[in-house]
Amino acid sequence: MIPEYLSLQIPEGPLPRVVIVGGGFAGLELAKGLRNKGFQIVMLDRNNYHTFQPLLYQVATSGLEPDSIAGPIRKAFDGFKNFYFRMVKVDRVDYQNQLVRTPIGNLHYDYLVLACGSATNFFGLEQVQQTAFPLKQVVHALNLRSHILQNFEMAVLTEDPQARQAMMNVVVVGGGPTGVEVAGALGELKNHILPGDFPDLDFKEMKIYLIEGADRLLGTMSKASGEKSKKYLEQFGVNVVLGQTVKNYDGDTVLVDDGSTIACQTLIWAAGVKGNLVAGILPDSLSKSRVLVDAYNQVQDMPKVFALGDVALMLADPAYPKGHPMVAPVAIQQGRLLAKNLIRNKNNKEQRPFVYKDKGSMATIGRNRAVVDFPQGTHFSGLFAWLVWMFVHLMSLVGFRNKLVTLINWVWSYFTYDKSNRLIIRTFDRKKNRPVEVH
Amino acid sequence: MIPEYLSLQIPEGPLPRVVIVGGGFAGLELAKGLRNKGFQIVMLDRNNYHTFQPLLYQVATSGLEPDSIAGPIRKAFDGFKNFYFRMVKVDRVDYQNQLVRTPIGNLHYDYLVLACGSATNFFGLEQVQQTAFPLKQVVHALNLRSHILQNFEMAVLTEDPQARQAMMNVVVVGGGPTGVEVAGALGELKNHILPGDFPDLDFKEMKIYLIEGADRLLGTMSKASGEKSKKYLEQFGVNVVLGQTVKNYDGDTVLVDDGSTIACQTLIWAAGVKGNLVAGILPDSLSKSRVLVDAYNQVQDMPKVFALGDVALMLADPAYPKGHPMVAPVAIQQGRLLAKNLIRNKNNKEQRPFVYKDKGSMATIGRNRAVVDFPQGTHFSGLFAWLVWMFVHLMSLVGFRNKLVTLINWVWSYFTYDKSNRLIIRTFDRKKNRPVEVH
Repeated sequence: MIPEYLSLQIPEGPLPRVVIVGGGFAGLELAKGLRNKGFQIVMLDRNNYHTFQPLLYQVATSGLEPDSIAGPIRKAFDGFKNFYFRMVKVDRVDYQNQLVRTPIGNLHYDYLVLACGSATNFFGLEQVQQTAFPLKQVVHALNLRSHILQNFEMAVLTEDPQARQAMMNVVVVGGGPTGVEVAGALGELKNHILPGDFPDLDFKEMKIYLIEGADRLLGTMSKASGEKSKKYLEQFGVNVVLGQTVKNYDGDTVLVDDGSTIACQTLIWAAGVKGNLVAGILPDSLSKSRVLVDAYNQVQDMPKVFALGDVALMLADPAYPKGHPMVAPVAIQQGRLLAKNLIRNKNNKEQRPFVYKDKGSMATIGRNRAVVDFPQGTHFSGLFAWLVWMFVHLMSLVGFRNKLVTLINWVWSYFTYDKSNRLIIRTFDRKKNRPVEVH
Repeated sequence: MIPEYLSLQIPEGPLPRVVIVGGGFAGLELAKGLRNKGFQIVMLDRNNYHTFQPLLYQVATSGLEPDSIAGPIRKAFDGFKNFYFRMVKVDRVDYQNQLVRTPIGNLHYDYLVLACGSATNFFGLEQVQQTAFPLKQVVHALNLRSHILQNFEMAVLTEDPQARQAMMNVVVVGGGPTGVEVAGALGELKNHILPGDFPDLDFKEMKIYLIEGADRLLGTMSKASGEKSKKYLEQFGVNVVLGQTVKNYDGDTVLVDDGSTIACQTLIWAAGVKGNLVAGILPDSLSKSRVLVDAYNQVQDMPKVFALGDVALMLADPAYPKGHPMVAPVAIQQGRLLAKNLIRNKNNKEQRPFVYKDKGSMATIGRNRAVVDFPQGTHFSGLFAWLVWMFVHLMSLVGFRNKLVTLINWVWSYFTYDKSNRLIIRTFDRKKNRPVEVH
């Protein structure tokens, strides 16, 4: 129910209006690139903050504070002129009338940029969607953290060995970077943190599974990195199951492809992403959940409409005939290029096509253990890879304060074998799909 | 609905069992004092963490991260033998049978210690209770933070000046330390933070009221400190209203004693506290919401039952004939003394009565401004008082990591005039009294 006095008010002016839907990496870079270049910039997002998704798994596993990996969008644009942020969900693009439609009114655009990122893909498994934990937003990470800790608090309250084991077990589905990293962090919790907290539990009972449909982990990385990460995970006590998919989960029991079952109260779904679409895109401009764009990120058959990052599918980059990976560097580079192209276009200069500059990829499994691939085919792993991973992720965080607090948490955890943020502040009711408040 | 496989299992042993209800200051100090002294210690709390309540207002006003001012209870007792923590709410004390009753079963005690702290006292104003924000728990602070920030996001979405002002206004009820400190922090937000975030709002429209029924602020402190804090608050732009009480609040309009009204969407209720009672205390052992105890913190007419801190009312301390103030130092000192007395009792030594050692009291209004009273009557204010306040509060936080992260946040805020934790992660529906999840 929306109060009737609310409406989407943006001053009209002589400058062409660029409406950016989404304050993620792509949207932020685009808006920064357009600063003082003769555009009115309107950014719309359902949250008032930007999330550094690659570190969400550390919030979920008590390693970092939620505020450390997110930053207020308005703060990023403090001092910008002709910039307007509005916290609102976009209902649909009205392409015929050059409008975005929202629950509190419509907004005309001169240029529309869809930078809405991605959402979890449950591949139509409805019961899984209702009972599993995704890991794409800050609230997901907080829900998961509270849920895991609460299960252990419940495990000490039962003498039923089956119920107890189901509360301690965690199944991670999907062997990409998110799945590998969260499974590794859970292994660290099991080995170093939880036994001190729960001396009355036998942690041999706790099983962590990582289930991946392909025959290797980290399919987007080198074969060596996939094998190394499997070895590292097994060193941390994670049961890596390859070549199997999850058919169903009812909140209590995981049904695996081969007919086997696992009793567990926590299933983390990191098996798929899809574009986080806005309604109103022409059907022919869509490929599944992503928006087809040309080499300039312009949406096919929709002039003045652009899409960036995870939600965009560009087939024009010769090195990536099936499109780019859905990762932050693509979004950042596309955001920066589109800013330049909009400025070039305004100055009647020729626009430049997007060519992705891959700087490599990496994943960490835990303490002293990570894998890094360079685009030339070089790859390395171990302590040095782990240090590189930490440095790159630390530098990617927005703001000095977030970097410093994150660094302190990491250094603290390293030397004390402690993860300090083990608070149950959101009690999530999976069956009802909303938080339970007991206070 | 509680799963039937849950039950309150604590191993029986030869040691006398001390059941501590509540993991606040009093409970923590008691349990630490009993370490390795021949007792089995069982601590029960509805949360798995300890909260440093004096800094909750900084979480509510975006200055600190929630995890910085709270610590996991289990971590505090890592390595303790014969210590059992259970996250469970206590229904009632069954004094006749020497049991505590909980939703998942009963527990026998040899000694029972009620250290359940305090709750917000709305003095029977039901509508206020449903619509105002208390500030006693981490979730309260997070709800309030999200609510205030969300109101500003809504204020930029309306051209109705009355609706806009109601969304910007904040009324704080109660001129004790919590009310003074939260009002000062709101003044800082208004002066230094929000105008940069919301350049399209006119912050002259935003009014902050602090309403106190007495004719001065900080009634438990010196008159000079009360006057100084009023002056400081007015320097920060807070409207201090003395000698008035709030009669009602419906979520939109505050009704003041003198018949005047204030339109506001945020009312913070810091006007009263009461003991956070457990059912089953003998009626004659109660004084309103607090439990009457003797000089040894033993509950009147209930042998083997003790009460500590905010929930206890001790009239035996000659210097405090009406009882002690409901503050952390009383709880800490009582917890420590009870540990010693239980040990003395075990060794057939004479117990010692409680005498409160008042080390002074203090409140901060904001940047460079605080007031400090020493028990001898000395008092001072200004920059040095502010530094003392920060040092004392920093040292009181549990754990080195929390101290360090808090210090960094404070230093950061001081030099940048920034409060970084402006994330709306809990959207709270006041009318339904529970969080709204939009994700």
